[in-house]
Amino acid sequence: MPQVTIAQNILAPNETIATEIQQTLTTLHIRTLNIMSSPGSGKTTLLERSIERLRGKLNIGVIEGDIETSADAERIEAAGAQTVQINTQGACHLEAHMILDTLTKRDLPQIELLIIENIGNLVCPAAWKLGEDLRVVVMSVAEGDDKPAKYPQMFATAQVLVLNKLDLLPYVDYDIEKVKQQVFAINPNLRIFELSCRTGEGLDAWYQWLVGFARGEQ
Amino acid sequence: MPQVTIAQNILAPNETIATEIQQTLTTLHIRTLNIMSSPGSGKTTLLERSIERLRGKLNIGVIEGDIETSADAERIEAAGAQTVQINTQGACHLEAHMILDTLTKRDLPQIELLIIENIGNLVCPAAWKLGEDLRVVVMSVAEGDDKPAKYPQMFATAQVLVLNKLDLLPYVDYDIEKVKQQVFAINPNLRIFELSCRTGEGLDAWYQWLVGFARGEQ
Repeated sequence: MPQVTIAQNILAPNETIATEIQQTLTTLHIRTLNIMSSPGSGKTTLLERSIERLRGKLNIGVIEGDIETSADAERIEAAGAQTVQINTQGACHLEAHMILDTLTKRDLPQIELLIIENIGNLVCPAAWKLGEDLRVVVMSVAEGDDKPAKYPQMFATAQVLVLNKLDLLPYVDYDIEKVKQQVFAINPNLRIFELSCRTGEGLDAWYQWLVGFARGEQ
Repeated sequence: MPQVTIAQNILAPNETIATEIQQTLTTLHIRTLNIMSSPGSGKTTLLERSIERLRGKLNIGVIEGDIETSADAERIEAAGAQTVQINTQGACHLEAHMILDTLTKRDLPQIELLIIENIGNLVCPAAWKLGEDLRVVVMSVAEGDDKPAKYPQMFATAQVLVLNKLDLLPYVDYDIEKVKQQVFAINPNLRIFELSCRTGEGLDAWYQWLVGFARGEQ
């Protein structure tokens, strides 16, 4: 299929830029996460909560990827993090050159943790490295428990899975054990956090992990 | 951005094939829908319910698009519709040439309504015509009420919006009026169905519309 061939041709230069970004950020002692998911899994809310909770403890910078609007960047900025918005104007994923462009606009040495919030899309972003140290995929329990098997590349290339909106479990057909079986078949080392940004359940373990990651413990 | 330029070069031949498909299906008096959404909005469940309810009344054929697995095609077949599975093997959307390939494998004259269930992705499928008469976008109320503004192309190119999982409304922050304001700003003629496949609320109006559409009334 033509789009696959073209993607391979574009991916090689993307990986070169991603490696450069990762080396630069490592030299500056900045740890970087690439957060990905379907639209509406709750990535932005998870970032808002994390920034509010860790204010004064951890200096977080955010790159917000969106096709259109700056609504998410405004929410993140209000939560207290330095934020740069990237609008892809139709493109379905972030690419490393977009990240490199924004890094020149930031006061990098102040940041300890850089979080890149990718476009809401469970397919394309998985193929594009952005210079991150780790990848986090967020999944709402309202999305159904068959998604890892149907979108395996995203789960294969992530190191962390956040199962969000746990408060909706009583109202949806979602079998967490079935999801774990699928993800561990694809990626046996995936670390899973089960939480609800609405009720706060499970958030403490996530915050603790985030701080540890920023300090180089993971 | 390079991927946009490339997409334009691929889109022109895709539209030629899509026009051919639409002409062939129109000659055979087959009406065609392209159903799109984020992963986990409930497209497959909506199709299951519709096929079960309209069995004996309307001859429905389904083309199931998935990156991996044949799980959805098995569900649709069990519901009673003739089904062809397309696995895109990594690609994030269906293209017209994939539909053309499957049409040669089907016993077309028996079908009155052909439903194409696209890959779960709120971005890329919007750019690719498949020969459909109408486009339906399905959205779960658990996805958040800011999505039309953030993913405008999908809502601009659809004729019908299904707001699904209405039973979750009491448990999520979702303002239907805010969604309507966004979608009507993008697409004033969009027809909206509000329903829940879980409780059955609102499904009768959808079934009625589907039969009318298949009979050429819309």
